[in-house]
Amino acid sequence: MSQEMKIGLIGAGRIGRVHIAAMHRDVPGVSVGVVCDLVEEKATGLAAEYGVAKTAVSYREVCADPTVDAIAVCTNTESHIEIIECAARYGKHIFCEKPLALSLPDIDRALAVVKESGVLFMLAFNHRYDPGNTRLKQDIAAGVIGRPEMVFITGRDPSLQPLDYLKTSGGIFLDTVIHDFDCSRYLLDDEPEEIYARGECNVDPAIASFGDYDTVMLIARFKNGTLVHYNNSRRAVYGFDQRIEAFGSKGKIETSNILETNLTYAHVDGYHRPPNLNFFMDRYVQAYREEGRIFADCVKNGRTPPSGGFDGRQAVLMGLAAKKSAAENRPVRLEEVDIR
Amino acid sequence: MSQEMKIGLIGAGRIGRVHIAAMHRDVPGVSVGVVCDLVEEKATGLAAEYGVAKTAVSYREVCADPTVDAIAVCTNTESHIEIIECAARYGKHIFCEKPLALSLPDIDRALAVVKESGVLFMLAFNHRYDPGNTRLKQDIAAGVIGRPEMVFITGRDPSLQPLDYLKTSGGIFLDTVIHDFDCSRYLLDDEPEEIYARGECNVDPAIASFGDYDTVMLIARFKNGTLVHYNNSRRAVYGFDQRIEAFGSKGKIETSNILETNLTYAHVDGYHRPPNLNFFMDRYVQAYREEGRIFADCVKNGRTPPSGGFDGRQAVLMGLAAKKSAAENRPVRLEEVDIR
Amino acid sequence: MSQEMKIGLIGAGRIGRVHIAAMHRDVPGVSVGVVCDLVEEKATGLAAEYGVAKTAVSYREVCADPTVDAIAVCTNTESHIEIIECAARYGKHIFCEKPLALSLPDIDRALAVVKESGVLFMLAFNHRYDPGNTRLKQDIAAGVIGRPEMVFITGRDPSLQPLDYLKTSGGIFLDTVIHDFDCSRYLLDDEPEEIYARGECNVDPAIASFGDYDTVMLIARFKNGTLVHYNNSRRAVYGFDQRIEAFGSKGKIETSNILETNLTYAHVDGYHRPPNLNFFMDRYVQAYREEGRIFADCVKNGRTPPSGGFDGRQAVLMGLAAKKSAAENRPVRLEEVDIR
Amino acid sequence: MSQEMKIGLIGAGRIGRVHIAAMHRDVPGVSVGVVCDLVEEKATGLAAEYGVAKTAVSYREVCADPTVDAIAVCTNTESHIEIIECAARYGKHIFCEKPLALSLPDIDRALAVVKESGVLFMLAFNHRYDPGNTRLKQDIAAGVIGRPEMVFITGRDPSLQPLDYLKTSGGIFLDTVIHDFDCSRYLLDDEPEEIYARGECNVDPAIASFGDYDTVMLIARFKNGTLVHYNNSRRAVYGFDQRIEAFGSKGKIETSNILETNLTYAHVDGYHRPPNLNFFMDRYVQAYREEGRIFADCVKNGRTPPSGGFDGRQAVLMGLAAKKSAAENRPVRLEEVDIR
Repeated sequence: MSQEMKIGLIGAGRIGRVHIAAMHRDVPGVSVGVVCDLVEEKATGLAAEYGVAKTAVSYREVCADPTVDAIAVCTNTESHIEIIECAARYGKHIFCEKPLALSLPDIDRALAVVKESGVLFMLAFNHRYDPGNTRLKQDIAAGVIGRPEMVFITGRDPSLQPLDYLKTSGGIFLDTVIHDFDCSRYLLDDEPEEIYARGECNVDPAIASFGDYDTVMLIARFKNGTLVHYNNSRRAVYGFDQRIEAFGSKGKIETSNILETNLTYAHVDGYHRPPNLNFFMDRYVQAYREEGRIFADCVKNGRTPPSGGFDGRQAVLMGLAAKKSAAENRPVRLEEVDIR
Repeated sequence: MSQEMKIGLIGAGRIGRVHIAAMHRDVPGVSVGVVCDLVEEKATGLAAEYGVAKTAVSYREVCADPTVDAIAVCTNTESHIEIIECAARYGKHIFCEKPLALSLPDIDRALAVVKESGVLFMLAFNHRYDPGNTRLKQDIAAGVIGRPEMVFITGRDPSLQPLDYLKTSGGIFLDTVIHDFDCSRYLLDDEPEEIYARGECNVDPAIASFGDYDTVMLIARFKNGTLVHYNNSRRAVYGFDQRIEAFGSKGKIETSNILETNLTYAHVDGYHRPPNLNFFMDRYVQAYREEGRIFADCVKNGRTPPSGGFDGRQAVLMGLAAKKSAAENRPVRLEEVDIR
Repeated sequence: MSQEMKIGLIGAGRIGRVHIAAMHRDVPGVSVGVVCDLVEEKATGLAAEYGVAKTAVSYREVCADPTVDAIAVCTNTESHIEIIECAARYGKHIFCEKPLALSLPDIDRALAVVKESGVLFMLAFNHRYDPGNTRLKQDIAAGVIGRPEMVFITGRDPSLQPLDYLKTSGGIFLDTVIHDFDCSRYLLDDEPEEIYARGECNVDPAIASFGDYDTVMLIARFKNGTLVHYNNSRRAVYGFDQRIEAFGSKGKIETSNILETNLTYAHVDGYHRPPNLNFFMDRYVQAYREEGRIFADCVKNGRTPPSGGFDGRQAVLMGLAAKKSAAENRPVRLEEVDIR
Repeated sequence: MSQEMKIGLIGAGRIGRVHIAAMHRDVPGVSVGVVCDLVEEKATGLAAEYGVAKTAVSYREVCADPTVDAIAVCTNTESHIEIIECAARYGKHIFCEKPLALSLPDIDRALAVVKESGVLFMLAFNHRYDPGNTRLKQDIAAGVIGRPEMVFITGRDPSLQPLDYLKTSGGIFLDTVIHDFDCSRYLLDDEPEEIYARGECNVDPAIASFGDYDTVMLIARFKNGTLVHYNNSRRAVYGFDQRIEAFGSKGKIETSNILETNLTYAHVDGYHRPPNLNFFMDRYVQAYREEGRIFADCVKNGRTPPSGGFDGRQAVLMGLAAKKSAAENRPVRLEEVDIR
C-alpha cells in the first residue's frame, strides 16, 4: 500500500457524500482515489467537489484498480453482496454501509468470500464511533452502573423520507432500528435471545401498503437478563432524536442530544433552547471521522475492526426477528429466523 | 354533613400517614375524625400525632359512626372490598387506595353496592393529581403534541421493599405499574386493547420464588393506535424516578424529576446536582394535597371524582393482562382477562 | 401567651397579604388576631378572606390589644419606626418588613426602644429563609467551595412597579437590592467594607426625575477579601429572576430559578421550558412560611431570630452607601454613611 | 500569492501550537511554510510534528522569505511591535495574538506602518469566532433581546499559570480580561466610556508582589448606557469557565459552557455531569479554525478582518483603564489613559 491509503468510493449518494467528507477531507493519511456511481454525473460531480481525479460507473473497474487499497460500499443495499464479493476477490479491504444485506444466506456467502480472501471487513455502524456512545460503553464495561438491568434506545428521524426510498429501505427495522440493534450489542457486550416488536403507521398510512411501519417499539431480552427497549419514529418534528439510557444496579447513565448552539433564550413565554443538530450528517460528524480513522488504522496496522461481518450479520438477524415479530404479533427468538 | 367534612381513616400504616398529613393538615374544611387500625397502638399513635380525638380497631364501628362523612380506605388490598361495601351500606363516601382489589368479580360486586347506595367513590390515583401530570394531560388534550403516537412512562422505586410486603403486594404490575397504567389512560383519554409484558428478577432472585418480578418492561397498544411503553424497577439507587414522555405528530413533552434543591455544584470532577425527592411521600406531596382537596370538593358539591370505580377496575384489568402476558410471554388482549 | 400565638397584622396591602397567607394559614400554632389598615375596607376585606374576626384602623389600638402577642409591620416604610416603638412599648414582639427605615438615627432610636422593652425583633428578610439559600449558606459554612472568593447575586423584578410606588420606595438600593445586600452578609458571615454602585434608567427615563435608577450593578468588597457583584433590574420580561453564584477556592455553587412546571416541550424550533415562578408571592412561598414558623418558634421558645435589628440596620447602611456611590460615581466605604 | 497561502509562524510556544493545528491542519488552502522560534529546538520540534520543511530562529528571515504570504505573530507580547513593523515592511499580511502591545504609542506607531504598507492586519481575538458568541452577536443585532441593558462576562482559567509567566503577561486585565473587553465591544457594537475595576489576590498572595491580581470584578459603562460586568479568576478548580449573559428590554440570552461529553450520571448522591472542556485549546478549537479560515478568506479576497488594529488598540486601552482603576480604586474614563 502506498503511503496514503486510497479509497474507491462506490455510490455517490447521500451516505457516499458523508464518507468522502469524513475520510477524504478529515482523516489524515486517507484519500478517495476514485468516485464511482452508476449515474455518471453523480460520480463526476462529487469527485469534482473534493478534487478527486478519477471517476467510474462500474464498481468492477474500481475493484480492479491497482491504485485502490480499499472499497467503501455506499450503494443501495441490494448491490452490497456483489460489490463485497468482487472487492474481496480483488484483495481490496472493505468498508461497508448498513445493512450488510437483507438475506442471511447471501450474507454468509459474501462473508465466506471475504474470509477466504483475507481482506479486512468493517461494517460502518457509525453510532459505535460517537464519542458519547464510546464513553458510555467504557463506563458500562467499567461497572459504573453495576450490572446493566435495562437499556433504552431512542432513534427518531427528523422527517419522513420519500416513500420511494422507504420501499427499498428493507423496512424500518433493517433501515433505522438496525443502528440501535447494533448499539445495544455493542454497549452490553451481550447477545439478544428474543425480540418483541410492535409497529404502527401513525405518520403515513401509505407505509402500510408495503408492509412497513413508521412508529415502532420493541423489547429485547439479552442473554444476561438485560431488557432493552427500542423506539423509532420516521418523523420527529423537533429534529433528529438520538438518546440512550442505561440503567443498572449501581445507577444510570443517559446520553443527551446535541443542540445547534450553546445559547439559552429567556422570553415572556419562558426559556428556549435551539433544536438538535439536524440529521445524521451533522449529529454524527465526529463519529464518521472516527469511523474512517479507525478503518484506516485497522488497514494500516492489520487490526480487526471493532465492527465486522459478524456484527453486520447479527444486526440483520435482529432486524429479521423484529420484522417477523411485528408481523405475527408475538416475541420471536433469534434462532427462529437464523437460516444458514 | 357538618360544616367541616369528617374522614374516618381506616389503616394507620404508611399510606394512611400520607393521607392524614394531606387531608387533615393541609386541606381546609377537611379533618380526620377517627383513626382506625387493627393494631390499636398504630391507631392511637397516629391519632395523637395529629390531635385526632377518636380511634377504633373495627372499621365497622367507623362506618357506623354518624359523625363520619367519608371513609378513607388505606388498608392492605385484601380488605378493600369488605370495607368499601360496609362503608357504602352506611352511606359513607369512599376514598380508596390502589389497587381497588385483585379480583374482578369482587370489584364488580363492590362497585355495584357503591352504585346502589349512591355514595361517591374516588380511587386515589395520586399521579393524576400531580401538577406536572395534570398540565401534561391538558397539553395533550389541547393538541400541543398533535396526535399522540408514543408515550413512555418510567416508574422506579428508590429501594427494594421488604419481601414480606412484596409477597402481599399483588405483584409489581398491580402494585407499582398500576399507577402508570392509570396514568396512560388518563393522559391519552383512550383505552388499551393489548399489553405485552416482560419481567426479570434482576434485583433479587428471591422475588421469583413467589412468581413476581422486580424489573419490567411493557408495551401497550391503545385503541387509537398510540403505543405506550412502561418500565418499572423495584430499586433505582439514585432515587425515586418518575418520568413521562409524550411524543406526537407535532412534538414532544417530557416531565422531569423534582430534585431536593435548586443548587448545582461545580467541582474538580464536574457538575453535581442533588438527588430526586426521595420517595412518594415527598415527590407527590402536592398531588396528595390536591387529591384530598378534590375529594372534599366532590363530596361537598356532588361532583363526580376524576378517578372513580371504573378507572380503578380498568387499571386492575391492565395489571391482570400484564401478569398473564409476562407468565405466558405473549401479548394479551384485555378482554382475555376480563371475567365478569 | 395563649396556646396559639396571635398576630396583629398592621398593613393589609400586598406584603400584608403574603404574611397572612403564610402565618395565619400555613404556620401551625399561629394566627392573625387583628387586621389593621388605615383604609378600613382593606382591613375588613382581608380579615373576611381569612376569617379573622377583629379589624382596626389604628395601629395603636392593635398594639394595646391584650389578646395580641406580636405585631407584623407590613406598612409603608415611613411608618415603620413609630409602629415599632409603639409595639415595643406595649411589650409586643415585632416582625418587621424591609427596609427597617430610611434614616439611621431613627433606626437606632427605635432599636434602643426595642432593646429596652425586651421584646423580640425579627427583620423579615425572606431570602434567608428560602430552602435553596439556606442550604447554600450551610454549604459555604461547611467549606464546600473552600474560601469564598466571588459571589454574584441577580435580582430582577418581572415588571416595572407603578411610578407612584417607586417614588416612595426609598430607591432601588433600599427597595430591592436590600434583599441581596442582606443575603450576601448572611451567606458569607462577613461584613462589607466598601461598595461601588452604578445605576442607569434603561427601563423608564422618568425614574431619573426622582433621582432613582431601574438598572443597577454593584461591586462590594467584604472584609475577608470576597468580592460581591449585585445586579438588579426593575423589569425582566421573562419573569422574576433570582439567582446566586458562589465561587471559591474549591469550586462553585449556583442556585437556579424555579420554573412553573417540570415540563419540557420540543417543537420545530427547539426546546421550550415554562417561565420562572411569577413573582415573590409564588417564588418565595416556602420562604415566607419558614420565616413565619421561625418567628413563632423564636417567640415561643425565647430564641434570637436569625435576622434581627442589626441585620436590618446593616442592610440599610449598605443601601445608603450604594446610593451615595451611584450619585457620586465613586466607591463608598460604609463608615462614610454610618451616622450615629 | 501561490494557490495555497503560506504562513510564517513566529513563536512555537503554546499559542503557536494552537494556530498551527488550526491553520495548517484544519483550514483548507492554508499551510504553515516556516516555523520560527528563538529556541531552535522548539521550532524544529513543532515543524517536524506538522511536516513543515522550513524552520528559522530569526523572524526577520521569515519576514523576508518570498515564499511566505503572511506572518502569524505568536511570540511574547514585548516582541509584537517589532515583528509587526518588520512584517509590514516586507509586505506580509499579519495575524497577531493578543494583546497587541502594552504601550499605546508603540501600538500607534506599528499600526501606522501597517497602514502605510497596505498589508492586512488581523488581531486574533478568538472569542469572537466561537460559534456561540457569533450567534449571540447576531441575535443582539437582530433585536432578539431588544435594547441591551446589562451584559455579564465570566472568564476563569482552570488553574494558576506559573508566576514567571504571569509576571510578563502584562497583568490580568491585559492578559485574560482583554478577551472579554473585546467581546463586549463586539457583542454590543458600542464603545465603553468608563471602567471601574476591583482586584484581589485570593488565589496566591505572591501575585500582589508584582502589582497584579488573580481575582477581578469590573463594571464598564458603554456609551449607549449598557452596563457590562466582567469577572475573571486565575483559578477555577472545576475548569475553564466561559459564559456570557446578555440582558435587554425583550429578554435574555445566555451561553453555556461546553462539557467533555453528553453523558449524565445518576448515582446515590445525585446527578453528575462531566467537567467543561479543559482549556482554550479544547474549548475554542472551532473558534481557532474559524479565525484561521476568516484570515485566509480576508487575505485571498481582500476583505477587512472582523477584528483589526483598532480593535486591538481599544482592548488595550480598556486594559490600561482597568489597571489604573484598580490601582487608584476609582472609575476611570477611557480618555484618561488614551495617550497618543
